[in-house]
Amino acid sequence: MRLAVAGCGAVGRAVCELAGAYGHRVTALSDSTSAVASPNGIDVETVLGRKTEEGTVGDDDPASLPEADYDVLVEATPTTLGDADPGFTHVERALARDAHVVLANKGPVAERYEELRAAERESEGEVLFEATVGGAIPVLSTVADLGPENVTAARGVLNGTANFILSRMAAEGLGYEHVLSEAQDLGVAETDPTFDVDGTDAALKCVILANVLSEEGATLADADVVGITEITPNALSLAAEDGRTIRLVGEVVVGDGNPSVRVGPRLVPTNGTLAVSGTKNIVQLQTDHAGELNLSGRGAGGRETASAVLADVGRLS
Amino acid sequence: MRLAVAGCGAVGRAVCELAGAYGHRVTALSDSTSAVASPNGIDVETVLGRKTEEGTVGDDDPASLPEADYDVLVEATPTTLGDADPGFTHVERALARDAHVVLANKGPVAERYEELRAAERESEGEVLFEATVGGAIPVLSTVADLGPENVTAARGVLNGTANFILSRMAAEGLGYEHVLSEAQDLGVAETDPTFDVDGTDAALKCVILANVLSEEGATLADADVVGITEITPNALSLAAEDGRTIRLVGEVVVGDGNPSVRVGPRLVPTNGTLAVSGTKNIVQLQTDHAGELNLSGRGAGGRETASAVLADVGRLS
Repeated sequence: MRLAVAGCGAVGRAVCELAGAYGHRVTALSDSTSAVASPNGIDVETVLGRKTEEGTVGDDDPASLPEADYDVLVEATPTTLGDADPGFTHVERALARDAHVVLANKGPVAERYEELRAAERESEGEVLFEATVGGAIPVLSTVADLGPENVTAARGVLNGTANFILSRMAAEGLGYEHVLSEAQDLGVAETDPTFDVDGTDAALKCVILANVLSEEGATLADADVVGITEITPNALSLAAEDGRTIRLVGEVVVGDGNPSVRVGPRLVPTNGTLAVSGTKNIVQLQTDHAGELNLSGRGAGGRETASAVLADVGRLS
Repeated sequence: MRLAVAGCGAVGRAVCELAGAYGHRVTALSDSTSAVASPNGIDVETVLGRKTEEGTVGDDDPASLPEADYDVLVEATPTTLGDADPGFTHVERALARDAHVVLANKGPVAERYEELRAAERESEGEVLFEATVGGAIPVLSTVADLGPENVTAARGVLNGTANFILSRMAAEGLGYEHVLSEAQDLGVAETDPTFDVDGTDAALKCVILANVLSEEGATLADADVVGITEITPNALSLAAEDGRTIRLVGEVVVGDGNPSVRVGPRLVPTNGTLAVSGTKNIVQLQTDHAGELNLSGRGAGGRETASAVLADVGRLS
């Protein structure tokens, strides 16, 4: 397949680097200020070298990306809330010309799900977004296989940064601020970690799961979200005395009508399934016929997320 | 889709019971001595009632099943070794008339993989077999999504009966024979538990994984297999003193040429990922780009396995 990749952060770069090994070709790439396109495939190494050295991928306008030659638009620009732009506009323009869309950007799926599905219905193109929930972990493909109507609830640890911070605080008895700055030094937390530590990122993933399970078009505003910034070493040591620890747990329960979406710190057994350590993520699915399924692995990272993007591209082939 | 179901044990029954809810219709069903077919769909409740009361599903010859009207043959007869018949013959006849095949029967995939793929290449029909590895756990679909060439090793606990026995022996300090007969009373172990406790069942699943990862056409004869019958309570308590326990672990390592397949009792950390308890199964996949993925859930059971069969049928639609 010919891929147009919007976004040249860790995920966009990794998609470009791995595409060839999966039998695909990148025919266009954009970052926030520039773009490059070539119908026979861009020279990935040269373009990414230019990005590293000069900060731009080419001389074109990034707004021109959706008009390039491609079969699949890979939307990997940063997640934005509310109107979810520029991601949503990229997706809309790709679908309008009957191309497929694969999203790593959570915004359009979490904030404008109904419009996204409506645009897909009008198009010959299909929309897939495995990478938006749990990075490399095959959550959405498993839900699709089970049949969304057979999944009654989903629960999990869906933010690696928050999980790293809680794991380190519990293991070392250190305070939140101390561990956060350590995580920033290690590159595990971003300079602005707000979405990770206030629960927004985990909530967006839960909203996407809720949308897939219910087709009710929930948004972040429908989620009940608490972050980890108020967790103290004392709370963690009290939990430990009781054989428990604290994890930032997201939960989607489907019933009649709107699903409930909640994210917040929860006590979990220290050796229990949800007590994954470090940056690992886990998702538990409760199903009607298949019992409980647990899926865990790397929930973030450029190559890991790119692997989920390319699995979606493979499904469209 | 119209399904012909060969085999009326726990899995075949559950496929018949759930097919309607997944939007499919059972047009033929056989057990080892009888068969029934109706182009508009058999009356599942009546037929399964007859099976329970009279021991037969209808008045037809079971050999007639592959000639009924259907789109997908579901092969759920008991796994047999060597020639893998009658399962293999059912599959061959369905493919010869360009129907699809979904297997729950491990025999044809583990013992005659190359012939199976050759028959598939000659047919318009496709062959899928998610249910043969890990029951409800989406192992093979995850491998397909990742790309088999990107998976370097698979490791896991793949037999629920053996795992139940080892878990109980460790928890209660009881001997193998005692716990085995308890498991038989509970219906967790079969009257003849040979394939479960001698490692054959786990080895068949590993051979199937090896075949999917390498396309080298391995068979059970290529696997190095040790069972759990020699494990003593003393071995388990020695392990426990060291923070470990014993699990029947299967392992597939792919390199150049033939993959290595080994199954045997291994020491694993008591709170580690592989130390699943009871009848639970787990599979760990080592990948090139997506890190390590862990998938766990119910590895057996009629409805659980039927759910994997019906996910395969869904993929063919």
